[in-house]
Amino acid sequence: MEKFNSEDLLFTKYHIRTDLALESHQAVIEQEGPPELPGVTVHTEEEEGITLTRIAVENDLGARLMGKAPGNYSTIQADGLREHNRDVHEKTAQLLAKEIEWFFEQSEVSAEDTVLVVGLGNWNATPDSLGPKVLENLMVTRHLLEMSPPELRRGLRPVAALAPGVLGLTGIETGEIILGVVERIGAKVVICIDALASRSVDRLCSTIQLSDTGIHPGAGVGNRRLAINRETLGIPVIAIGVPTVVHAVTIITDALNLMEGGQARDQAQGQPGRTQFKIDPQALLGKEPPSAPPAGQQPPLDRRQLLGQVLDPYFGSMIVTPKEIDLLIDEVADVVTGALNIAFHEGVSYDEVFKYLS
Amino acid sequence: MEKFNSEDLLFTKYHIRTDLALESHQAVIEQEGPPELPGVTVHTEEEEGITLTRIAVENDLGARLMGKAPGNYSTIQADGLREHNRDVHEKTAQLLAKEIEWFFEQSEVSAEDTVLVVGLGNWNATPDSLGPKVLENLMVTRHLLEMSPPELRRGLRPVAALAPGVLGLTGIETGEIILGVVERIGAKVVICIDALASRSVDRLCSTIQLSDTGIHPGAGVGNRRLAINRETLGIPVIAIGVPTVVHAVTIITDALNLMEGGQARDQAQGQPGRTQFKIDPQALLGKEPPSAPPAGQQPPLDRRQLLGQVLDPYFGSMIVTPKEIDLLIDEVADVVTGALNIAFHEGVSYDEVFKYLS
Amino acid sequence: MEKFNSEDLLFTKYHIRTDLALESHQAVIEQEGPPELPGVTVHTEEEEGITLTRIAVENDLGARLMGKAPGNYSTIQADGLREHNRDVHEKTAQLLAKEIEWFFEQSEVSAEDTVLVVGLGNWNATPDSLGPKVLENLMVTRHLLEMSPPELRRGLRPVAALAPGVLGLTGIETGEIILGVVERIGAKVVICIDALASRSVDRLCSTIQLSDTGIHPGAGVGNRRLAINRETLGIPVIAIGVPTVVHAVTIITDALNLMEGGQARDQAQGQPGRTQFKIDPQALLGKEPPSAPPAGQQPPLDRRQLLGQVLDPYFGSMIVTPKEIDLLIDEVADVVTGALNIAFHEGVSYDEVFKYLS
Amino acid sequence: MEKFNSEDLLFTKYHIRTDLALESHQAVIEQEGPPELPGVTVHTEEEEGITLTRIAVENDLGARLMGKAPGNYSTIQADGLREHNRDVHEKTAQLLAKEIEWFFEQSEVSAEDTVLVVGLGNWNATPDSLGPKVLENLMVTRHLLEMSPPELRRGLRPVAALAPGVLGLTGIETGEIILGVVERIGAKVVICIDALASRSVDRLCSTIQLSDTGIHPGAGVGNRRLAINRETLGIPVIAIGVPTVVHAVTIITDALNLMEGGQARDQAQGQPGRTQFKIDPQALLGKEPPSAPPAGQQPPLDRRQLLGQVLDPYFGSMIVTPKEIDLLIDEVADVVTGALNIAFHEGVSYDEVFKYLS
Repeated sequence: MEKFNSEDLLFTKYHIRTDLALESHQAVIEQEGPPELPGVTVHTEEEEGITLTRIAVENDLGARLMGKAPGNYSTIQADGLREHNRDVHEKTAQLLAKEIEWFFEQSEVSAEDTVLVVGLGNWNATPDSLGPKVLENLMVTRHLLEMSPPELRRGLRPVAALAPGVLGLTGIETGEIILGVVERIGAKVVICIDALASRSVDRLCSTIQLSDTGIHPGAGVGNRRLAINRETLGIPVIAIGVPTVVHAVTIITDALNLMEGGQARDQAQGQPGRTQFKIDPQALLGKEPPSAPPAGQQPPLDRRQLLGQVLDPYFGSMIVTPKEIDLLIDEVADVVTGALNIAFHEGVSYDEVFKYLS
Repeated sequence: MEKFNSEDLLFTKYHIRTDLALESHQAVIEQEGPPELPGVTVHTEEEEGITLTRIAVENDLGARLMGKAPGNYSTIQADGLREHNRDVHEKTAQLLAKEIEWFFEQSEVSAEDTVLVVGLGNWNATPDSLGPKVLENLMVTRHLLEMSPPELRRGLRPVAALAPGVLGLTGIETGEIILGVVERIGAKVVICIDALASRSVDRLCSTIQLSDTGIHPGAGVGNRRLAINRETLGIPVIAIGVPTVVHAVTIITDALNLMEGGQARDQAQGQPGRTQFKIDPQALLGKEPPSAPPAGQQPPLDRRQLLGQVLDPYFGSMIVTPKEIDLLIDEVADVVTGALNIAFHEGVSYDEVFKYLS
Repeated sequence: MEKFNSEDLLFTKYHIRTDLALESHQAVIEQEGPPELPGVTVHTEEEEGITLTRIAVENDLGARLMGKAPGNYSTIQADGLREHNRDVHEKTAQLLAKEIEWFFEQSEVSAEDTVLVVGLGNWNATPDSLGPKVLENLMVTRHLLEMSPPELRRGLRPVAALAPGVLGLTGIETGEIILGVVERIGAKVVICIDALASRSVDRLCSTIQLSDTGIHPGAGVGNRRLAINRETLGIPVIAIGVPTVVHAVTIITDALNLMEGGQARDQAQGQPGRTQFKIDPQALLGKEPPSAPPAGQQPPLDRRQLLGQVLDPYFGSMIVTPKEIDLLIDEVADVVTGALNIAFHEGVSYDEVFKYLS
Repeated sequence: MEKFNSEDLLFTKYHIRTDLALESHQAVIEQEGPPELPGVTVHTEEEEGITLTRIAVENDLGARLMGKAPGNYSTIQADGLREHNRDVHEKTAQLLAKEIEWFFEQSEVSAEDTVLVVGLGNWNATPDSLGPKVLENLMVTRHLLEMSPPELRRGLRPVAALAPGVLGLTGIETGEIILGVVERIGAKVVICIDALASRSVDRLCSTIQLSDTGIHPGAGVGNRRLAINRETLGIPVIAIGVPTVVHAVTIITDALNLMEGGQARDQAQGQPGRTQFKIDPQALLGKEPPSAPPAGQQPPLDRRQLLGQVLDPYFGSMIVTPKEIDLLIDEVADVVTGALNIAFHEGVSYDEVFKYLS
């Protein structure tokens, strides 16, 4: 399991809440200095307006710097996802399917291993409904294949699906439900679909993140809950998430930075103005509390912290979304479902999947 | 587990599909003769337009005659439930709460035992959405009580809830999911909420059945599936169901009977015209296949069988509902939720529950 | 306006309730004799599993025989619509678009005339939600084009849309709302989308009917309400409907016919066994009440009438649908929306429309 | 009609977007000085945690200062509305009903005048769905009373209802649809229900505003659209609104003020630190553009303006809501519906209304 609560760290230091490794990376670069972090590798490809970024957090140093557990994080960014453009939807689904297959290879999941797709979240609360919505058109096959002779299954993988609900509505840790079901059905890999929070409003419903480090529901001070990952379930866990909200506190601190010379944004876009690391990477691995930067060096951080303390009581549970969030979630859910249907079944062509889906 | 597939039996013999023990009892009386069945006791009370009927199937003979597993079946019938009358809703909720408590006593469930409420069915298909809807306003407390010291819990029972979905959407037997979760959380009793089929359109959304014999999902020829009952889960299972559909084949055969002199209906209403049992109860417990009545004695049954064979291919998957089914289900779901909230928590008064619910 | 209440006639005589001209035609042929009716022409084409039937009711005699107002009725039947097959969906949408264009030609609607699409029905009641659902993805352009110079509008028609609700929820005749809006915006043609009742369960969500005779909401004895047609609105009205329910009484009378030798069904499928007209067409246009057939000739009809009288109090408001009605309506609504988007805008290609729609 | 675009003014000057007169009043007091504005009267009552504030904008000077058209604005604030407390819901509904009756008196609406309730907004977009949701349980009576003799109508008012949709989905100005329907049915008063934007997150779903100045849909630069008020419809228009969102830009500028010494909030809470009016009220009524304050006097305003310009491109369409917005809207919609049902019908008691509603 994780040795630290990554989200807390990033929030304490920068008052940024984001579930995207890509944004954590940007935030650290932006605040701390040079464009490369020790223990973290970044690889980017772009094609036809869709950008794929693979970030590998290779060791504890990288994890501590990033505030993310060691593992692989891939991000697909396609601005066209928000423009109701079916071409972009189909290209993104194909790219996402390839990336799912790449994660299967990394985790040594084989072609006929049973997969359990878990749609996290609350279908009754719009910004949190991505997970259950992805399940709606998923090709579920486990119950059909159980009755088929193996020679007829070729190309079809047993797929099961579950929307476990949220703790407030079930009274049960989501991880407990999943663990119970994984054991009963003998799943070999779990794919969790979840709505995320991003730092930037531009990424809402236009970015898809995959990772193999699992899910930490409701991470937050005093709220330690059961993680959903390889350690707790005993099988690989691949998380696929789409940001649907920005926390109100995040948007405010970012706006403040915009006001203060627009530096933050410039740097976030890859033009870092500082070339020296402002903190000692080794210190992070030592005993010092990571949230205590060297005194006197970082007035902007002090300001962020103060801001966070002042704002949290007012805006803590407030979220920021686009007005048309209901429609955008429906569309990106279709993209994720399409990708899963393509990636799961060797014997099913891309065209067949799109024919199958209404 | 059951020694026979009860629904099949009633369907094969009478071409009636009903999940209500009360209607099974009526159908057998109607077809077979005297108003009392060996091994079956019936008790009825009525107050202010609400009728409570308790049927106990006491042994295998009763079970075989009724086509229902041995156990307790209570039915609450309130025509006013369909008339948007909040007074009737509240009275019915109170009566249902008392009946749930009676079932808890029968099953020796004590006041602080953890209960898992399972909302069966598909929230995306209106007539099958009762179970998930009942969960929406349920007071779920397990996660809250876990962190409370025992002395603060007095009067509040740990309640968890789960909407496991349906086999076609999950690829997993519903019973497997429940079993996995029951084991993980240590529940002491399961309450299953489900939409039922009745024989009579008059009962749709105006009748609530409780039973302690569990649930047999998708019972039907070639469709043997995992039951959800005390045998499979190891703890008491109380099923609460509301009829939301009539199978098309049922309505047609009943209409045919109406045409043939209106005898069937008269008898269903308690004026049986025949006083002699037409089949030998003992024979039912013997080797003979129960669906083969003595030749030549039952022209109406032959006709029903023929009818069923002819109609099933055309109408097998067709259901009959009132036009305003969406609204009626919302209302009866509120009644069931209210009753559960009252029955679960000794420390919560009826008024508090209704205040709590919006 | 109509000189008689067509639905009543067909129901009184045959106890069949159907909104499809194709089924009225079949029912009359089936009951009355030869495969051709005076004053009615029928034209059928079939391609790749999709059948297009155009019925023209050419005069009052045909109208009286059919129980349908004089005008054009086209029916597209595609069994594949119920099989989640996107190929069939797209082909059906293209064929429907062509047929809409043909109706525009018949009604002399030109390429830049403003169209008002009216989604009839209640979005809160599943079987009645087709109309509002079709509007969800409709390309609405009127407000955009009003601000554009004419030279930029080429190929785009002003399209407005309205979901007026149902009388029980608005307290206003739907026709009144439409009339008020048509006058305000100067629409040149109205297209009404509505859920229909068919006689046959096979047609549910697999048949689309177009007609230029308008809509008669809630037609029924004692329920005369404002029609929505060329006479009341002063502009062409094209109705597009999809059967989503069968009335319970219809299914029962049809089942009865199946039991009585299966004759009815054989004839419905085009093998009429009788070659003589059993009633005098001229008599229909005379003074005699049309629902009084010559005595002694039609025992099956007497039986139907009796049946209807007996059953109506029990089953009058009951409807029959497939279990998966929610999903089927979503899919057929997408087909209708796609066809409207193609048919309305000369400048928009089929591919562009499907790209635009998510 | 209005002589100026009030919302624009308040936004240009203070970068606050709010639809609540109460907040406009607070913002002006806060920025400009003394607690009383010329031409504006304020009256406040409080009982059992529910506060009623009546603001009368009495002339053009008051209107210009407030940025609100002349007329009556009542605000009911009940923090308990967000706490799922049915007692508070019922008390608020009763108080709202009385206030509706007060507005009826002000507008000389008599007991049997036909009322048209208009549910503005988009039922498919959660934060904008208040209007259509309020209609769901509204007692609609117009169609029933039309057929009743007058002596049987006593105590029941003819009520009609319409959810016209939004411009983007209909292509028709909402005002055009309402105007068309008002003319057809002869309504004597229109009540518009709408979701609003507030400045403060505390008010979301806990405040209800009534006004008799009508609705100005989509007010904003370059977006002049048809108002829905007494001038355009020719009959009284009473608007009932509930804030469901805060604009992202508003929350950021307010947070900035919090950071700058917390002055803004203190003043908003009634402790204004400045006692001198900083602008000349008469100048506002003159030729000078109202958004050009005397140079050099208002650094905070300059900062706000700069902030607005910088932030609008990034956050312009972003909204802030509580996470549980879906549930909160359902609950406040029930309160508004209950109040309308009580206020409309003299002959219907409060208890009967709550019985009628499920």
